[in-house]
Amino acid sequence: MLDQVQSRRPALGQALAETATAIDRLFDRTLAVPRDSRGRLVEAMRYAAIGGGKRLRPLLVLASGALFGVPRNHLLRAGMAVECIHVHSLIHDDLPCMDDDALRRGRPTVHIAYDEAVAVLAGDAFLALAFETLASPSTHPDAQVRSHLVLALARRSGAAGMAGGQMLDLAAEAEAELDLDAVTRLQRLKTGALIRWSVGAGAILGDAPADAIASLMAYAQCLGLAFQIADDLIDAAGDESCAGKRLRKDGDRGKKTFVGLLGIDRARDRAERLADQAEDHLRDFGPAADLLRDIARFAVERDR
Amino acid sequence: MLDQVQSRRPALGQALAETATAIDRLFDRTLAVPRDSRGRLVEAMRYAAIGGGKRLRPLLVLASGALFGVPRNHLLRAGMAVECIHVHSLIHDDLPCMDDDALRRGRPTVHIAYDEAVAVLAGDAFLALAFETLASPSTHPDAQVRSHLVLALARRSGAAGMAGGQMLDLAAEAEAELDLDAVTRLQRLKTGALIRWSVGAGAILGDAPADAIASLMAYAQCLGLAFQIADDLIDAAGDESCAGKRLRKDGDRGKKTFVGLLGIDRARDRAERLADQAEDHLRDFGPAADLLRDIARFAVERDR
Repeated sequence: MLDQVQSRRPALGQALAETATAIDRLFDRTLAVPRDSRGRLVEAMRYAAIGGGKRLRPLLVLASGALFGVPRNHLLRAGMAVECIHVHSLIHDDLPCMDDDALRRGRPTVHIAYDEAVAVLAGDAFLALAFETLASPSTHPDAQVRSHLVLALARRSGAAGMAGGQMLDLAAEAEAELDLDAVTRLQRLKTGALIRWSVGAGAILGDAPADAIASLMAYAQCLGLAFQIADDLIDAAGDESCAGKRLRKDGDRGKKTFVGLLGIDRARDRAERLADQAEDHLRDFGPAADLLRDIARFAVERDR
Repeated sequence: MLDQVQSRRPALGQALAETATAIDRLFDRTLAVPRDSRGRLVEAMRYAAIGGGKRLRPLLVLASGALFGVPRNHLLRAGMAVECIHVHSLIHDDLPCMDDDALRRGRPTVHIAYDEAVAVLAGDAFLALAFETLASPSTHPDAQVRSHLVLALARRSGAAGMAGGQMLDLAAEAEAELDLDAVTRLQRLKTGALIRWSVGAGAILGDAPADAIASLMAYAQCLGLAFQIADDLIDAAGDESCAGKRLRKDGDRGKKTFVGLLGIDRARDRAERLADQAEDHLRDFGPAADLLRDIARFAVERDR
């Protein structure tokens, strides 16, 4: 996938590649394997976190923080924190009692490669690591900023955010009727919450003015939804070997998705329009926000 | 159990009862049930968190913070945060892939009363709620204090703390030889970490001087170990209907415990000695620390 991005959008391709390398290195340094039975837990965490992720959320933190001159090492730590929450959710969502997936990023999922107990604990430990990372003075010298980041990420990870979204998603399989509003709300919690946090984190770290934050949050809102519709399109019409995970599972389970409700063409139109809107919200930032613009376009180009 | 405490140690009995009521009320206010499919998730969280817990960790926060004149509402919020982590660990440890327990506090465990997916998500949401609670300005006006509390609790919940301890515990079932040092290290992570945080949190919230913190942490270290040995004694020799959970499971699984390694009499002696040492560390605090002393005695009296 990265090859494809690099040929179409070289600046974004390079930024994604550099972010992936930097985040891998940070995980590598953070996840030192202890010499006792905990070794297996930390190895499972390394297996889940290092290599293979798109690192879209950390890139959003970097791209947003760059608008306000935030030092790169602070942005990378906040990026690793949100990636911890993302990896946590992938590990737990793949469990047999949840989505029961055996493949992720082209490799066996954590509970297959290790076992279920290790997968539950590894997911838990990533949640804790996210907040440990944010609360550490290495992430920002001002405790007010750190505390703000923790509060926002905790809200967006729990019952009022991502975990709540996954609950709605599990319930959606059983529900006969789920309209566009309900699917939109579900995805806003399940995937949108972390995308909004990532864009907001750069602004919080950079002590951005209120109007800049409002524009960025409006951008993130559109981006999150565009990104999810593109994900649904990949699930409905994508190539399994490219995606590195089982596809067509939404339809098989009768899960309501944007594609299921709108059809492929209208879903694609909707995603394009959301990417346009996302770009519109960046108009006051000038060329400094080109990377964020590229990300919005990339989000909806991924499925082709 | 509370009746027994109240007759032997009336002040502690009253403190436990008051803390339980206050923590129940705080959970009740915090866990408002949404009117959509997330309702089931939040109901499961209420089921796990409200009613029935000893609230020993919140009481430790209260008793330690009282030494430094910390307002009670701040202490209760920190107490709820550590109780969130505790409840999180109980829900996940009870899962079929972990300890596979069907009974907890005399009631079906969360994955039995609801289902496994809800249990995984409820545990996750409690982890997030703990950090949301600590990072909120209602817990303390100084962000430095909030950030410190988050950092310490995150470290003690993850791979280097409680989750790591549970991993050691799962591995211990398979290991032929586990000596006293190894069992001590395991329990220091698995149960000691949260007890140390609880005692430390009162001191952090009260901006306590370094020597007071050192004494309290030494107290907490002894208390945590005494508490765990008493737990092992209850498992080996206690009454199932009093404990409200399945007992005798450690021996059945060949798990190495203090009782298994020392025998009942020597384990009880060891616990008593640790409670004495815990009390010794409180000598500079005078009668203000009587509640902490009572807790140390209570920890080792529980099994009789």
